[in-house]
Amino acid sequence: MTSQSKTSSPFIMIAFDADDTLWHNETFFSDTQAQFKNLLNKYHDHEIIEKKLYDVEIRNLEHFGYGVKGFTLSMIETAIELTEGRILGKEIQTIIDYGKSMLKAPVELLPDVKSVISQLSQEIPIMIITKGDLFDQESKVARSGIADFFTHVEILSQKKKADYETILNKYNIPPQQFLMVGNSLASDILPIIELGGHAVHIPYHTTWAHEVVEKKNDVKDKHITLESMGQFLEWFHNQ
Amino acid sequence: MTSQSKTSSPFIMIAFDADDTLWHNETFFSDTQAQFKNLLNKYHDHEIIEKKLYDVEIRNLEHFGYGVKGFTLSMIETAIELTEGRILGKEIQTIIDYGKSMLKAPVELLPDVKSVISQLSQEIPIMIITKGDLFDQESKVARSGIADFFTHVEILSQKKKADYETILNKYNIPPQQFLMVGNSLASDILPIIELGGHAVHIPYHTTWAHEVVEKKNDVKDKHITLESMGQFLEWFHNQ
Repeated sequence: MTSQSKTSSPFIMIAFDADDTLWHNETFFSDTQAQFKNLLNKYHDHEIIEKKLYDVEIRNLEHFGYGVKGFTLSMIETAIELTEGRILGKEIQTIIDYGKSMLKAPVELLPDVKSVISQLSQEIPIMIITKGDLFDQESKVARSGIADFFTHVEILSQKKKADYETILNKYNIPPQQFLMVGNSLASDILPIIELGGHAVHIPYHTTWAHEVVEKKNDVKDKHITLESMGQFLEWFHNQ
Repeated sequence: MTSQSKTSSPFIMIAFDADDTLWHNETFFSDTQAQFKNLLNKYHDHEIIEKKLYDVEIRNLEHFGYGVKGFTLSMIETAIELTEGRILGKEIQTIIDYGKSMLKAPVELLPDVKSVISQLSQEIPIMIITKGDLFDQESKVARSGIADFFTHVEILSQKKKADYETILNKYNIPPQQFLMVGNSLASDILPIIELGGHAVHIPYHTTWAHEVVEKKNDVKDKHITLESMGQFLEWFHNQ
């Protein structure tokens, strides 16, 4: 432990997003999408497939929410629509198998995550707040090897202002003493700033188009951006 | 409110299962299964389809967990396997549409649920503890029209002893002062009795084969069974 004591921190809880903040996620989606485009090679151009898949995913969000199972169903629907039903049964089975591979893929922590999280957990209570499919996210937390460092794990279907508000109320955390760390401006940073909390943005190299938001100047002033998790402890100890 | 006051109750929290306890659920699965069997009529007997679907569902539980999206993927996989890939794209789209219909089906409360829950919520804190897909279950709670009567809603991927233990710890509820009400012996009753809590079993007319457990005599003594939610308040007021 450093010279910083728990009581000197301006925060009483630090929450981390999980996908693309603690471990790789979007790359699995991109890799699967590449395989999917190859599978449909003989029917359409990659660009058309990509556009159609994105449209189907967004259209299906209201039915399926976020996560691999909904993504798999959207790939199947895209394949049927793009081939006007000519897609073969065995090709659809291949798509289902893509989904299963994603669901059982090993959890790969991002650089420095293990050391930062284990150190930080000795200094201040930390939790995970992540969005997505309950079963899949729980399984990833369990397989991550860092689950025990977190006091709480909250899996949400959405990460909007009201969702964070519910959690902060539940654990009795004033927003002014709460810090959120994540890769998504839309889900991890903006709602927290709106609530009057603190946020650290650590971008991941890829962001799903649906999560991309324009960074306005007035928001830039209210959170800080780090290049990687490796910079987090130094920043934290200077607060 | 009756003459019973909050303090005279032996319980400090009553939790209700949701699917097939507060509202119909299994009937949607049975109805969809009937449609699915008709869709595959020309390929196989109903009995073979039913057996195969059950096997695929159980095999896929480890990948997909519980819920409509996993069920839909299992129906697709069953259709592909049973037709050796001859299933048509448009038939698979029909299966996806079954899933979407289930996900947006109106929430139909069981008889007396609304009056019992609204009355009870004035006497004692009540919560929902349900299993399944986060997005789907949250959406059903929101659409149920009774969400506001519950102090907490907990959606779990499993309902085993350890899962209940985590929740009781989180809310600081001693098992001896906790009552669980539900339709499934395996998920709602047995784990609670093991924990030293109280349980009321209100069977639904259909139970998914996977949830059926044999009722042993020593368990029978430790919980009570009511025929319907309509009997709950009278029983509760006699505790």
